[in-house]
Amino acid sequence: MIDISSLTTNDKMIFLACDQGMEHGPEDFNETNINPDFIFQTAIKSGLNAVIVGKGIAEKYYPEYRQEIPLIIKLNGHSRFNKPNGWGPLICEVEEAIALGAAAVGYTIHLGSLIEAEMFQNFGRVVREAHALGVPAIAWVYPRGPEIPNPQDPNMVAYAARVAMELGADIAKVYNPGSVGALRWAQMSAGKTRVVISGGDKVTPEAYEEEVRDIMRAGLAGIAVGRNVWQSEDPLAVCNGLKEIIYKGAY
Amino acid sequence: MIDISSLTTNDKMIFLACDQGMEHGPEDFNETNINPDFIFQTAIKSGLNAVIVGKGIAEKYYPEYRQEIPLIIKLNGHSRFNKPNGWGPLICEVEEAIALGAAAVGYTIHLGSLIEAEMFQNFGRVVREAHALGVPAIAWVYPRGPEIPNPQDPNMVAYAARVAMELGADIAKVYNPGSVGALRWAQMSAGKTRVVISGGDKVTPEAYEEEVRDIMRAGLAGIAVGRNVWQSEDPLAVCNGLKEIIYKGAY
Amino acid sequence: MIDISSLTTNDKMIFLACDQGMEHGPEDFNETNINPDFIFQTAIKSGLNAVIVGKGIAEKYYPEYRQEIPLIIKLNGHSRFNKPNGWGPLICEVEEAIALGAAAVGYTIHLGSLIEAEMFQNFGRVVREAHALGVPAIAWVYPRGPEIPNPQDPNMVAYAARVAMELGADIAKVYNPGSVGALRWAQMSAGKTRVVISGGDKVTPEAYEEEVRDIMRAGLAGIAVGRNVWQSEDPLAVCNGLKEIIYKGAY
Amino acid sequence: MIDISSLTTNDKMIFLACDQGMEHGPEDFNETNINPDFIFQTAIKSGLNAVIVGKGIAEKYYPEYRQEIPLIIKLNGHSRFNKPNGWGPLICEVEEAIALGAAAVGYTIHLGSLIEAEMFQNFGRVVREAHALGVPAIAWVYPRGPEIPNPQDPNMVAYAARVAMELGADIAKVYNPGSVGALRWAQMSAGKTRVVISGGDKVTPEAYEEEVRDIMRAGLAGIAVGRNVWQSEDPLAVCNGLKEIIYKGAY
Amino acid sequence: MIDISSLTTNDKMIFLACDQGMEHGPEDFNETNINPDFIFQTAIKSGLNAVIVGKGIAEKYYPEYRQEIPLIIKLNGHSRFNKPNGWGPLICEVEEAIALGAAAVGYTIHLGSLIEAEMFQNFGRVVREAHALGVPAIAWVYPRGPEIPNPQDPNMVAYAARVAMELGADIAKVYNPGSVGALRWAQMSAGKTRVVISGGDKVTPEAYEEEVRDIMRAGLAGIAVGRNVWQSEDPLAVCNGLKEIIYKGAY
Repeated sequence: MIDISSLTTNDKMIFLACDQGMEHGPEDFNETNINPDFIFQTAIKSGLNAVIVGKGIAEKYYPEYRQEIPLIIKLNGHSRFNKPNGWGPLICEVEEAIALGAAAVGYTIHLGSLIEAEMFQNFGRVVREAHALGVPAIAWVYPRGPEIPNPQDPNMVAYAARVAMELGADIAKVYNPGSVGALRWAQMSAGKTRVVISGGDKVTPEAYEEEVRDIMRAGLAGIAVGRNVWQSEDPLAVCNGLKEIIYKGAY
Repeated sequence: MIDISSLTTNDKMIFLACDQGMEHGPEDFNETNINPDFIFQTAIKSGLNAVIVGKGIAEKYYPEYRQEIPLIIKLNGHSRFNKPNGWGPLICEVEEAIALGAAAVGYTIHLGSLIEAEMFQNFGRVVREAHALGVPAIAWVYPRGPEIPNPQDPNMVAYAARVAMELGADIAKVYNPGSVGALRWAQMSAGKTRVVISGGDKVTPEAYEEEVRDIMRAGLAGIAVGRNVWQSEDPLAVCNGLKEIIYKGAY
Repeated sequence: MIDISSLTTNDKMIFLACDQGMEHGPEDFNETNINPDFIFQTAIKSGLNAVIVGKGIAEKYYPEYRQEIPLIIKLNGHSRFNKPNGWGPLICEVEEAIALGAAAVGYTIHLGSLIEAEMFQNFGRVVREAHALGVPAIAWVYPRGPEIPNPQDPNMVAYAARVAMELGADIAKVYNPGSVGALRWAQMSAGKTRVVISGGDKVTPEAYEEEVRDIMRAGLAGIAVGRNVWQSEDPLAVCNGLKEIIYKGAY
Repeated sequence: MIDISSLTTNDKMIFLACDQGMEHGPEDFNETNINPDFIFQTAIKSGLNAVIVGKGIAEKYYPEYRQEIPLIIKLNGHSRFNKPNGWGPLICEVEEAIALGAAAVGYTIHLGSLIEAEMFQNFGRVVREAHALGVPAIAWVYPRGPEIPNPQDPNMVAYAARVAMELGADIAKVYNPGSVGALRWAQMSAGKTRVVISGGDKVTPEAYEEEVRDIMRAGLAGIAVGRNVWQSEDPLAVCNGLKEIIYKGAY
Repeated sequence: MIDISSLTTNDKMIFLACDQGMEHGPEDFNETNINPDFIFQTAIKSGLNAVIVGKGIAEKYYPEYRQEIPLIIKLNGHSRFNKPNGWGPLICEVEEAIALGAAAVGYTIHLGSLIEAEMFQNFGRVVREAHALGVPAIAWVYPRGPEIPNPQDPNMVAYAARVAMELGADIAKVYNPGSVGALRWAQMSAGKTRVVISGGDKVTPEAYEEEVRDIMRAGLAGIAVGRNVWQSEDPLAVCNGLKEIIYKGAY
């Protein structure tokens, strides 16, 4: 088993993710959070477990934060156009990510899409190369395609979590299926692969905390959050609330 | 000839397969058999010849069972979506599988599908690399496509078995063609390549034993069974019945 | 020039081919000739120049015949489905074929098909690798496609023979164009590349001998025959007749 | 951070680009400027920061100018046909460009097109290879596709600039979004990646200077100009005007 | 600059080309010129600058002519079927061509076709590999596609010549645009890349000489001629006439 303890606090995980600059566009940002320094500084001040960004941000911004927080590099990416079949081949290689300081690598898989096969094959290689160097591999498994009307359906989320484990992922990042029972089944389906839940669209901090309590009640590993922290009015306060729930078990 | 004796008992084979987590989804499982440990333990307690899983399960679960039962890694896989042309490129490489402890490698080929050519080419490489290391290569040959209304037609199954041999497989895994005569012709078509029959959908243990008696009467090598063991109420009892027929010739 | 003399008798060639197990299916066979041993033994007893098979048969059956008859391995293959664009990428590599004991390698090219470009490129590589090792390369050039209503048209067969030479083949295997004049022009178009004619569907031994006399009158190198020998009632007798015509000039 | 100071004057940039021979055709040229020597000499006499050309012009023309002005080689290119999906794979490799004397390499990305994925992947490799050798990588990011009615929309240009940064570019070359506010937001979105604006169609020198003043007021790095210099009646005079604005801050 | 002087007489070029066996078929030939020896002997007796053939003819026929005339190998080729998108990937590699004795390598590019991108990329590699070994690279640039009603339009021919130069070609082979002015502009567009004109369909020797006088008046490098020499009644006489015009300036 690959050691993921450097990415955890009390065996739980809170990752701060920022890939919307690539995946949606700058309209998601304001003049403060458009600057990647803000994302890193928020995560460091809050004592989170890692920041997830693409290689461009990693290379230009991470060096001054190298001693202060682990980095996870998302190896693929695509724009918001040409859905659902616009996809993300490897933009950053595993060795390249490690040279940039990454403690783990991540890759998005669109389960059920027309390019699922290439994504499985790519991630298979990511796991092979990362594990050969003792580095954890994280799979974001997002169901997507004409046969998938509801990507957050409990069966679909459990399928996504299981596929991540079958492909060799150490951590699976999946959508919230909506209930404690569905969350539990997702983690059971993934077995020894730790499951974290994606943050999703921005909601009020209170609403988000409710979701996160359910996630922890279900026994999952934690969360990968984005806009619910860096689009909020007081990111540090939001993070404190999340840490209470996730690290301290306040649920 | 590659030596496959470590995968046999009395020159016959019973493999316990579990790839439904990838190929169908967790709906096939319950809270007991969703855990890959259960699959390994069932096969070990029953004294079967090998377990067939993908590399994710192999890497995270097989190490503690390494001395107790041989491992076969299925190198490709795909989800249940986008049939019939969703296909499975190599997710795990031959060397990688061997490093994970595999005693043999397997690969699925959809004979008659639009990506048959790539699958033939991929399996040709699997054979080349596995045989260079003295490791057996197993082909699952499943006819699939618009020109194939009935994949279990006796001519189609014999064709599948022959294609496996022509591509260099040491063992061929094919569908049950339904009669002793058809089973015999499938094995004759495959020549020196040993033929095992896929387990198929779950039926009653008695019905399954009837199928297996015919398989052995026809002179085949054995079976690769999945749900008919681990979805049953008493997997160990089911396996005992199969062992009588397959290893001890009770047919 | 690559030396092909080990594949000839009196500078002429009779090759016994058996790839129908892959390209058509076991329905072409009976309980005797489904066994590749029968193919090898027929060719050896008849003193033919070589057997042409795929790598699966070569690996499992050829070792015991290694000292008795040269082997030609057909490097690509495809099933009978999805014509006309089902095609055959390399299943066996040149070095692999030589390690399996091949004295020459063969590859099928569908001149005029939609994947002609990839086939040209593949065969270009086959020639490059085979010639670097002093091994002859044989091109089966079969015209196939919407612009080709009659693959056996004399102009089409001469084109096929010329393309084989242009791509670097040492021997070209083409369809029978039907007359001595057309056969002569095919060989002239191929120049220093030796032309052999494909056996085609099964006809009576007498009808086949008539075809073969014309082939030799036209000055070609010989034949690659399959079903007209191993589907016949008395393969050895058929071969004796062919040898008289081809090696001894009885035409 | 890769050092780009050799491409700047007072931390600003004016690049003279000439790829229309490939991307539009010789109809854009006259008997004077069809000769690449004219392009190099204009840039050298004007004291600009670099010339941007493809590898053909670089190899045949740059050697005599090697000591006099830096060279940027554009690694991909395509003709004017088959828009919008005609695209440009790598024609020149990074190491090859450096051997030809390039101080930086550039690559065009059509954000939003059907081959965006391959372009992202290609540019990811360009960055990896260039940065390993300490060489800057420039992304020309041009939005193009059915979902993009206006490539110069301010949100689209900011997205293009951000994507360049996310992919690892040191300099981003984007379209003019039309206002100082939009230009500022594009540079903010790109963060530490320096943004230069593409020259566009030929307009009067006065009109072009107005555009350039806004570009500099917005705090961008500079411009990549083509036809507005070498299609003008007095290229040196046009360059002097641009230098006043860009190097000396006359806006 | 790569040295091409070994391919010239008085700095001019006459190449004898024979690829119609692959690109059209043997119907273009008679019993004399179907034999590649005739092509080589014609070129040698006439004292031309080089013969252009594919690798099959080069390997089997060129060795005895190695000391007598330079060889140019055309690296790609395709049949006459499936136009306009049948295309020619590399059948012969650069190193392979040089080992076969080639003094230069050539590659066809269909400017404007749907596979233009792959052809640009392939030729970019051909240039890279050939120039690394000091060997000239020749681009045949033939406009082809739905946006190109007239491949011989003067603007199209000048575009073809310019694209050859932009891709790194040392010599460009293009269609005849029909007037001295258009020929001059094509050569100007190509700059330091030498332009030769393709021979085209067979016309009378007198008509062909008229075309060639215009080509030389326009200042081009020379011609690549095929059927107008080897389909003529007296190839040596035709060549003498061409030499007067091209080497001796009789226009």
